[in-house]
Amino acid sequence: MADEVVRFGILGCANIARKLSRAILRTPGVYLYAIGSRSLEKAQAFAKDNGFPSDARIYGSYQSVLDDEDVDAVYMPLPTSLHMEWVQKASEKGKHVLLEKPPALSTEEFDKIAAACELKGVQLMDGTMWVHHPRTAKMKELLKRHDLIGNILEVHSSFFVPMKMHNPNFFMDNIRCNAELDALGALGDLGWYCVRAILWVHDYDLPASVIALPGAQFTKGGVITRCSASFVWGDGSVASMHCSFHANMTMSLNVYGTKGTLDVQDFVIPYEESSAHFSVRSFDKREPLDVNTETAQTQESLMVQNFATIIKGIKNGTGGLDPSWPTITRKTQQILDAIKLSIEKGYREIQLKA
Amino acid sequence: MADEVVRFGILGCANIARKLSRAILRTPGVYLYAIGSRSLEKAQAFAKDNGFPSDARIYGSYQSVLDDEDVDAVYMPLPTSLHMEWVQKASEKGKHVLLEKPPALSTEEFDKIAAACELKGVQLMDGTMWVHHPRTAKMKELLKRHDLIGNILEVHSSFFVPMKMHNPNFFMDNIRCNAELDALGALGDLGWYCVRAILWVHDYDLPASVIALPGAQFTKGGVITRCSASFVWGDGSVASMHCSFHANMTMSLNVYGTKGTLDVQDFVIPYEESSAHFSVRSFDKREPLDVNTETAQTQESLMVQNFATIIKGIKNGTGGLDPSWPTITRKTQQILDAIKLSIEKGYREIQLKA
Repeated sequence: MADEVVRFGILGCANIARKLSRAILRTPGVYLYAIGSRSLEKAQAFAKDNGFPSDARIYGSYQSVLDDEDVDAVYMPLPTSLHMEWVQKASEKGKHVLLEKPPALSTEEFDKIAAACELKGVQLMDGTMWVHHPRTAKMKELLKRHDLIGNILEVHSSFFVPMKMHNPNFFMDNIRCNAELDALGALGDLGWYCVRAILWVHDYDLPASVIALPGAQFTKGGVITRCSASFVWGDGSVASMHCSFHANMTMSLNVYGTKGTLDVQDFVIPYEESSAHFSVRSFDKREPLDVNTETAQTQESLMVQNFATIIKGIKNGTGGLDPSWPTITRKTQQILDAIKLSIEKGYREIQLKA
Repeated sequence: MADEVVRFGILGCANIARKLSRAILRTPGVYLYAIGSRSLEKAQAFAKDNGFPSDARIYGSYQSVLDDEDVDAVYMPLPTSLHMEWVQKASEKGKHVLLEKPPALSTEEFDKIAAACELKGVQLMDGTMWVHHPRTAKMKELLKRHDLIGNILEVHSSFFVPMKMHNPNFFMDNIRCNAELDALGALGDLGWYCVRAILWVHDYDLPASVIALPGAQFTKGGVITRCSASFVWGDGSVASMHCSFHANMTMSLNVYGTKGTLDVQDFVIPYEESSAHFSVRSFDKREPLDVNTETAQTQESLMVQNFATIIKGIKNGTGGLDPSWPTITRKTQQILDAIKLSIEKGYREIQLKA
């Protein structure tokens, strides 16, 4: 097989893997090459349902994917509690890892994951798709326009998905509510995006302190089903985030500057695949500026492509590991840790070390 | 003069009094009858600039307006620290009081104001205009539609006015930043509306607790220029509010239910006088419902009319005092007190007594 193609293996048949399979199929320069599940039958059905090429390797275990020497990279949509074990095993086999979020249950655990990847020279990237959308770059460009926005003072972000409307038994049987599998619940599944967005606005400058707001909710097993948190930076800038498995669908990011405001209604998953909107209201302009970003490639395909570009560079010796991706992953995880700790400490303010 | 007309006197020439003068002029059944200022010249200029009728009484003191037996009601746009003194004096003279917000510096002070009015049988209403807009009734009607909204889980409201963009010396010379005159600063001037809106969504059911969020800001004199707070109800419902004299113009209210969401971008002062919008996104409907409420009368004119209707009822013996207005004023003031106390206590959670 030609060296310029990056061959992907997928570990597990999670729902989200359908979206990624489609993205890999549609991304130039990458190949949907293997799938492994604990059940060979499930893997076969998944490959068939998701248009895997006829020569794809179908395995009855995750390890078999890792043992396949032709696999360059794995996409890992496993429950969070399995990430450390399987990233370590993948890195042992030299596989680059595209890791579904939340990457780990804690920063301490994430550091082991990242260290394993670094040690073995494999690239780690988390599966946060929206940062790869061209709208995101366009938003950043306008946020940097001091004449439009001024100094950024407040950022608010909410991500709500009414899980019971989709699945009446969600709180009973979904892994995102299972303390053994995805103990961070709504914070890891939804809050992750709000925290990442707030950090992204701040060019990944960590806040000085984080506090969770009274009113977090939990399953009987102690998994977070809703929470809010507030952040303060040293310069007085503030942010707040809200995530919930209960409230009606919402994916908002609002950035307030001294001069202008940026609003996006669907920052996590654009309502449409081929175009995405946001608006900027500036103090001295009567009408809001409605910005539309067209894209031929979906954000998940662009993520796969950006990940594959790094791998190609490593394979052909023209590039190396890109530490910026695990760095922003770690910062997001640090804030999640602080929010969780604040909740555990009765909503106490948590000071962050830079 | 015919009994069916309510004659208004205005105490002071504050900027906001221009809007109210215009509203009184345009409201049927009321008469713009008198203005008093500590300076007769200022009162004369104000009356001339604001189209007072040629027979209007122009006085060089507030007390002269109160001493005028033909004045039925006063509109009081004085600095908050003067409210208690002048409402007490007005009630002594049997004048009904339309009181600019924030009505008082504390609930304790408000209770004295309200008690004075009750004792003398005069109606007290605070100057929160948006609750009188027909859009508000329409929003309430849709919020009660369980098929559209479901149970209300979260409410977020922000009111920001970038004061320095309007007046570079705002933080130096405006009364809203003067600890002697309007000590509640942005919390009283802007946060008042967010708190009222959140209580309105909850049919004025007080939350169980209130906490201010780290990151409040102050003038050198200790007046709040920005703050945020979060509320929790006994049933687990939450709300948050943000107010700021620094960030770009924003007047948002977002209500999130299990099934649907209500968003309004200009809840305090509709962008247009004659029509006002809001939108409802419901889980099972693809497109948001954009609701437009037309109104021939501005919200400030409707406020004047609603206030005058009570007074007419009292005057002609067909009605009495409406205690619901001071009741919702008091509840709003209670929340402001709790936010201020929380800030003073280092952002401690404050439990409210029902």
